[in-house]
Amino acid sequence: MTRVHRLGVLGGGQLARMLALAAAPLGIRVRALDPDPDACAGDACELACGGFDDEDALLRFASGLDAATYEFENVPASAVEFLADRLSIRPGAASLHASQDRAREKAVLADAGFDVAPWACVDDQASLHDAVRDIGAPAILKTRTGGYDGKGQARIAHAGDASDAWASIGRRPAIAEARINFERELSLVAVRSESQFAAYPLVENAHRGGILRVTRAPACDADHLQRGAKAQARALMDALGHVGVLAIEFFEVGGRLVANEFAPRVHNSGHWTIDAAATSQFENHVRAVAGLPLGPTTPLGPAVMLNCIGRMPDAAAVLTHPDAALHDYRKRPRPGRKVGHVTVRGEHDPAELVRAFGIDLTGNDERVGG
Amino acid sequence: MTRVHRLGVLGGGQLARMLALAAAPLGIRVRALDPDPDACAGDACELACGGFDDEDALLRFASGLDAATYEFENVPASAVEFLADRLSIRPGAASLHASQDRAREKAVLADAGFDVAPWACVDDQASLHDAVRDIGAPAILKTRTGGYDGKGQARIAHAGDASDAWASIGRRPAIAEARINFERELSLVAVRSESQFAAYPLVENAHRGGILRVTRAPACDADHLQRGAKAQARALMDALGHVGVLAIEFFEVGGRLVANEFAPRVHNSGHWTIDAAATSQFENHVRAVAGLPLGPTTPLGPAVMLNCIGRMPDAAAVLTHPDAALHDYRKRPRPGRKVGHVTVRGEHDPAELVRAFGIDLTGNDERVGG
Repeated sequence: MTRVHRLGVLGGGQLARMLALAAAPLGIRVRALDPDPDACAGDACELACGGFDDEDALLRFASGLDAATYEFENVPASAVEFLADRLSIRPGAASLHASQDRAREKAVLADAGFDVAPWACVDDQASLHDAVRDIGAPAILKTRTGGYDGKGQARIAHAGDASDAWASIGRRPAIAEARINFERELSLVAVRSESQFAAYPLVENAHRGGILRVTRAPACDADHLQRGAKAQARALMDALGHVGVLAIEFFEVGGRLVANEFAPRVHNSGHWTIDAAATSQFENHVRAVAGLPLGPTTPLGPAVMLNCIGRMPDAAAVLTHPDAALHDYRKRPRPGRKVGHVTVRGEHDPAELVRAFGIDLTGNDERVGG
Repeated sequence: MTRVHRLGVLGGGQLARMLALAAAPLGIRVRALDPDPDACAGDACELACGGFDDEDALLRFASGLDAATYEFENVPASAVEFLADRLSIRPGAASLHASQDRAREKAVLADAGFDVAPWACVDDQASLHDAVRDIGAPAILKTRTGGYDGKGQARIAHAGDASDAWASIGRRPAIAEARINFERELSLVAVRSESQFAAYPLVENAHRGGILRVTRAPACDADHLQRGAKAQARALMDALGHVGVLAIEFFEVGGRLVANEFAPRVHNSGHWTIDAAATSQFENHVRAVAGLPLGPTTPLGPAVMLNCIGRMPDAAAVLTHPDAALHDYRKRPRPGRKVGHVTVRGEHDPAELVRAFGIDLTGNDERVGG
C-alpha cells in the first residue's frame, strides 16, 4: 500500500471531526463529505459539500484522495460501491452490508460465536405473529435498516401490542427481539488492519432516551469477559475482512455477554480513548485504513466519559476540574443532539461530575433505549 | 472576558498548526495569518493569506475574531499594535517588546532574578572594543533583533576576531555575550493567565547546527533547580503582564542555571507535552489567551522528543514503536527545516531511537549553536 496522504471521510459530523484531528499529526489530510455546509468536521478539515447520492459530488470528493472511510454505517451502499471503483474504501462492503441490516447483523454476530438474544424477522402480519409467539413478550421491534440512537424501535409489552408496535415503525421490514433483563451494558471497541488486531478493554455504558450518556472505562469486574469478547470480535472482523475500528455493544446477563449490535466505525463508547488510552480509537482507525502499524490500546488509567446532549456545559466549569478534557464539537444546540463530550481521568462518581459540570442528563426525547 | 470562539494566530507554521489542533476540542476555531498560501497550519484551520505589514490583510484576518495570539516573536510590532486596537491580542506588547531585542531581553531576565552571562551592547567599533575587553574571549555576538535558530550570530574566538565577527552579522546593533562552558542546556515552559500560573518541569535539550534536536522530559537530576526557575519565571511573566505560554532557555553551569533567552510563545522544547503531560503547552496557551482555566502541567511519565530536520522519517518505522507518537507537519522537505517531531514515552536512549527511526541528526547547515 502506498503512503496515504489524503483520506476521505463520508460524513462530516463529530466522528469525522475527531478522525481529522487524529489524522493531522500523522501527516494525513482529511476531506469530509456531507450534505450540510455547516457540518462540524469543517472546522478541522476540508469539507466537500454534497449528497451521498450525487455522483458529481462523489467525484469531486474522491479527486486526489488516496483512500476513504466513513463515519456512519448508514451511508448508501451505492455511494460506497461508486467510490470503491475509484479508490480504497475501508471498512469494506461486507462490514457495511452486515451492519446496515439488523437481520444480517444478528446472523454474523452469531456466526462469530457471540451469544445473541432470541430474534426473528418480521416482514408481514404472519411473521410478526410467529415472532411474538416464539420469542414471547416483552419484546422489541427494530426496523431492519436505518435505525440509530434508538430511532426506528418500538416496544411490545404484551403480545396484543404487536400490531400497534409494528404500525408505529411504519410496518417496515423489522426484527423482533426478546427484551432482555440485563444487569448492565458493555461495549468493546476493536481495531483490525491487514496484518494486526487489537482491542480496547470492555467499557460500561449508561443510556437514557436511547442515547449514550456515560461510559466508564475500563468496565469494573469485566476482566473475565475480556478474553472471550476479544476473541469473538477478532473472529467477526476476520470474517468480514474488516479494516478499521469496529464496536460491539453487549448486555451483561447473569455474568455472560449477549451481543446486541455492532458499528463498523469509531464509536461514542470509545471517545475516552482520546484522553485515557495510549492510542485513541480515531488514530487507530486512521492508521488501519492508511495501512500504518496499529498503536497500543492500553488504557492510561480509569476514566469516565460524559456525553453532552442538547447543549454544552459551561467550558470554564469543566476545565476547572484538573482531570477533565473538554470536547466541544461546535454543533448548534438542539434537544437530543450530541454536541460534545467530557472525559475525566481517574476514579470519579459520574453523578458528581454531572452536577459539578452542570451537564443535563435528562432524556431529551421519548425514544426507546437499546 | 466573553467566551472566545474564534482565535487568530499570527503565523501559519507548525506552532499555529498545533495550536489549532489543541483549540478545536475546546470549541475554538483558529484562523492563521501567513504570507505563504501553503503554510502548514492550513491543514488544520482556516488560513488567511497575507503579509504582516498589509493592513487590508490584517483587517480581513481580524474580521470576526474574538482574540488573537502569535506563533513567533518576530511578528512586526506594528502589526500587533494595529490589531491590538481592534481585539485582545495576547501575549501583550511588553512581552513582544522584550523578546524582540536581545538587550532588553537580558535586562528583563536579570530583573526577574535570573542569572545571565556577562554581556554588553555593541553599536559601533568603540563599544565592540569595550565589550570584548570587559567580557573577554571567547564571546558570541548576536544581532539585537531578528535572530532565531542560531541565525544572526557569530563567534569571537579571540579578541582580534571581533571586527570580522561583527562584519559577518552585517555590523548591525548587537550584544556581545560571554561564551559559557556549560554542562547542559535546559529549558522551562511556563504558562500564565490573568489569574493563574503553572510551569512544566525543566527539560534537557540538545542542539546541533543551532537547531534543537532532542528534548528529554523531565530533565534528570534537576529537581533542585525547578523551584527557583519556576519562581523567577513567575516574576518575569508577572512583570511583563504576560498571558500565554513562555519558554526560557538555560545553560546549567556548576549546578546553577544561567538564563540565555526566552520566547513569548509555545516552544519546541515543550512539544513533548502533547503526548506526555496532563495538558499540552498548546492547549494551555489557548486556554490562557481565551480566558479559560489552565490545565495541570504534570508529566505523565518520562519522554524523549526528537526533532525531524530536513525530512520526515518513514512513518511506519516510527509507528511500529509502541511508545512513539508521530507529528508530521506536512512541510516540504528542505535542509535545516523543522518538518516534524516524534515523542517517545518512557525511558529511552535517544541515540537508539534515532537509529531505529532513521532520523537524520547531522547538522544541515553551518549556523552557530546557541
